[in-house]
Amino acid sequence: MSHDSIYHVDTQRLEAFSDGAFAIAITLLILEVGVPHVSAESDLAQALWQEWPSFLGFGLSFIVIGVMWMNHHSLFKDIERQDHWLLVINLLLLLCISFVPFPTAVLGDHMRAGEEHRRVAMLLYGGTFTVIAILFNALWLYASRGRRLIDDHVSAARVRSRTLRFLPGPVLYGVGLPLAFVTPWLSLGLYVLLAVVYLLPLNE
Amino acid sequence: MSHDSIYHVDTQRLEAFSDGAFAIAITLLILEVGVPHVSAESDLAQALWQEWPSFLGFGLSFIVIGVMWMNHHSLFKDIERQDHWLLVINLLLLLCISFVPFPTAVLGDHMRAGEEHRRVAMLLYGGTFTVIAILFNALWLYASRGRRLIDDHVSAARVRSRTLRFLPGPVLYGVGLPLAFVTPWLSLGLYVLLAVVYLLPLNE
Amino acid sequence: MSHDSIYHVDTQRLEAFSDGAFAIAITLLILEVGVPHVSAESDLAQALWQEWPSFLGFGLSFIVIGVMWMNHHSLFKDIERQDHWLLVINLLLLLCISFVPFPTAVLGDHMRAGEEHRRVAMLLYGGTFTVIAILFNALWLYASRGRRLIDDHVSAARVRSRTLRFLPGPVLYGVGLPLAFVTPWLSLGLYVLLAVVYLLPLNE
Amino acid sequence: MSHDSIYHVDTQRLEAFSDGAFAIAITLLILEVGVPHVSAESDLAQALWQEWPSFLGFGLSFIVIGVMWMNHHSLFKDIERQDHWLLVINLLLLLCISFVPFPTAVLGDHMRAGEEHRRVAMLLYGGTFTVIAILFNALWLYASRGRRLIDDHVSAARVRSRTLRFLPGPVLYGVGLPLAFVTPWLSLGLYVLLAVVYLLPLNE
Repeated sequence: MSHDSIYHVDTQRLEAFSDGAFAIAITLLILEVGVPHVSAESDLAQALWQEWPSFLGFGLSFIVIGVMWMNHHSLFKDIERQDHWLLVINLLLLLCISFVPFPTAVLGDHMRAGEEHRRVAMLLYGGTFTVIAILFNALWLYASRGRRLIDDHVSAARVRSRTLRFLPGPVLYGVGLPLAFVTPWLSLGLYVLLAVVYLLPLNE
Repeated sequence: MSHDSIYHVDTQRLEAFSDGAFAIAITLLILEVGVPHVSAESDLAQALWQEWPSFLGFGLSFIVIGVMWMNHHSLFKDIERQDHWLLVINLLLLLCISFVPFPTAVLGDHMRAGEEHRRVAMLLYGGTFTVIAILFNALWLYASRGRRLIDDHVSAARVRSRTLRFLPGPVLYGVGLPLAFVTPWLSLGLYVLLAVVYLLPLNE
Repeated sequence: MSHDSIYHVDTQRLEAFSDGAFAIAITLLILEVGVPHVSAESDLAQALWQEWPSFLGFGLSFIVIGVMWMNHHSLFKDIERQDHWLLVINLLLLLCISFVPFPTAVLGDHMRAGEEHRRVAMLLYGGTFTVIAILFNALWLYASRGRRLIDDHVSAARVRSRTLRFLPGPVLYGVGLPLAFVTPWLSLGLYVLLAVVYLLPLNE
Repeated sequence: MSHDSIYHVDTQRLEAFSDGAFAIAITLLILEVGVPHVSAESDLAQALWQEWPSFLGFGLSFIVIGVMWMNHHSLFKDIERQDHWLLVINLLLLLCISFVPFPTAVLGDHMRAGEEHRRVAMLLYGGTFTVIAILFNALWLYASRGRRLIDDHVSAARVRSRTLRFLPGPVLYGVGLPLAFVTPWLSLGLYVLLAVVYLLPLNE
């Protein structure tokens, strides 16, 4: 087996492990949505309806992680080799992805509490995704700087366009943090908007 | 590496990610079945027996998701390429698959409550599977329309027969919703029947 | 792509999905072990120690599922093709594997309760593994009968020896059930013994 | 298909199963971090802040398991064949990896309790990782002894250097145990230090 093909197999296992972590984090989200326990007289439909922040949080986090996964997937089409630092940055990225069910649960539980609770929950939520977006850029910039780990078939123009496409992420997610001090609803609106925009096929 | 083989590898990773989400959603179902805590004098066997709606829900959802997985698997034998919209539809499908443990838990907890609670739980349960069946059709129709993403070795007859086989899904699951207004037990019977029918080797 | 290679890829995806379900079921086991919440004066070490049935159940179920996985893995070295019924039997097998965390939790919670609770918990636990062993035999007998799905490179002697090796499983696990009516400790001893025996390299 | 390639495929499935267990164990860690439930008047930010031992435990265990995964991954680049004992040792290793969420949760819940609780929690935590490090060495020593399962392309020098690199693990983790009798904070400091050191690209 040539040196080259060993490295190629390597990236496949890194991708498989990452896919696993993405798939599990995304699927665990539902466990944080509590089943309402209502008495015989009370209204189950209404109890379910009042959990809307948990459903919204579930859907929103699912789509954001899903889009992250698509990007990760797309990015590793261009990365052919790996080294220790790539593994480390990727591990920190997966750490933050795995963390997402927690801020999602905090958001779901406190979105209907007072404005102050809502703000704290939203800062935790938005902060998590901001850090994820920063790590995503770090991963790509590390791999692409001087074509360190880039496949030969990838053109310089493609590397540049990918860099430009990832850079706005931390800013866009980061903007949601000061917005939460105006009102957390504004941050929430921004994150929903970002999820929808990222789902549209603009970034392929 | 040719353009074609890159796309082929791509579909493999999409399938691997989907397999992961299917496998995790299906396996998480058991976590929603609560362990009965009985006092020394009470009867553990009876306490377990009274949880039958949770066991039934577990088994039913497991088989439905399992059959969905088989279909997904079979469907991607014919789909050779992917594009952004296919990823998006597939992500929404996985979102709904990941959601299944929640309505399953609600059903398990409320099937032995009053008729009204039972109806709400059944509507949530049946509604979830109806949406999943719709997304399944969307996925296939998008991929097969004008043979957009279909492998060359797949005959037109096979595409047509697959289309005809998927179309009844949303109707059959959807019929369970008005039935719940007669009585939720009728919907439950329908869904059990559908699970058994789909397990039989009629759709291969 | 030849018909043969399509089928070969197929079995890989079936195996990948099964591996996923095995890996998840085995890893979820720990979630059923409750973290002890002790007051400042009480003894954490002792509280942990009193949870020994949960730790034993965790270890025992882990090893049994792990051995099942090894066998599944070994078995699919000889199975080269799949058909609808193989998928169905495999799905039912995975359903029972996914169910294991539940009887394991019931056992862990009730092993230190009265003899009657212990017996019920043990019957549920042993019954689950008996059914799993039966489904394992069903899977192999279906695939190997008339060499229905067996790879050409597999000798008849190997098929026969594998059949003989799997057949005792349901009997050995099944024997634990009547033993529980003598005392559940005897069943537990049998299952621990079986786990150790299966770990020894006798069945390769 | 030659004998050799069958064995090669085998190791791939062992690796895939292990990757699954690593990825799931690492991702389940977050489920043990409880969402704080605070009243309207109390401070959510402060309640989150007081959970710092849970966050630290999550991050620390994530990095340790992640580094273990990297090593496992790196190690199987050199192991080309498998036999029953390798599967058994690997299964015991995965058992301990899957156990990690439990001591992590115990640590998170008791680090802010009294010194005695803290010590017990730290001994459980450090003990788990010590056993994992021992099993890691067992796996490698078993595979490499007399080049039992080693790929031909691997040089003797590489085998020796890998052996030397793994050997300190059990000692370093084991040292944390007596340190806990001085004060558990010292053990915690050691484990944080080890996690950082292992993240640095010294061991590639």
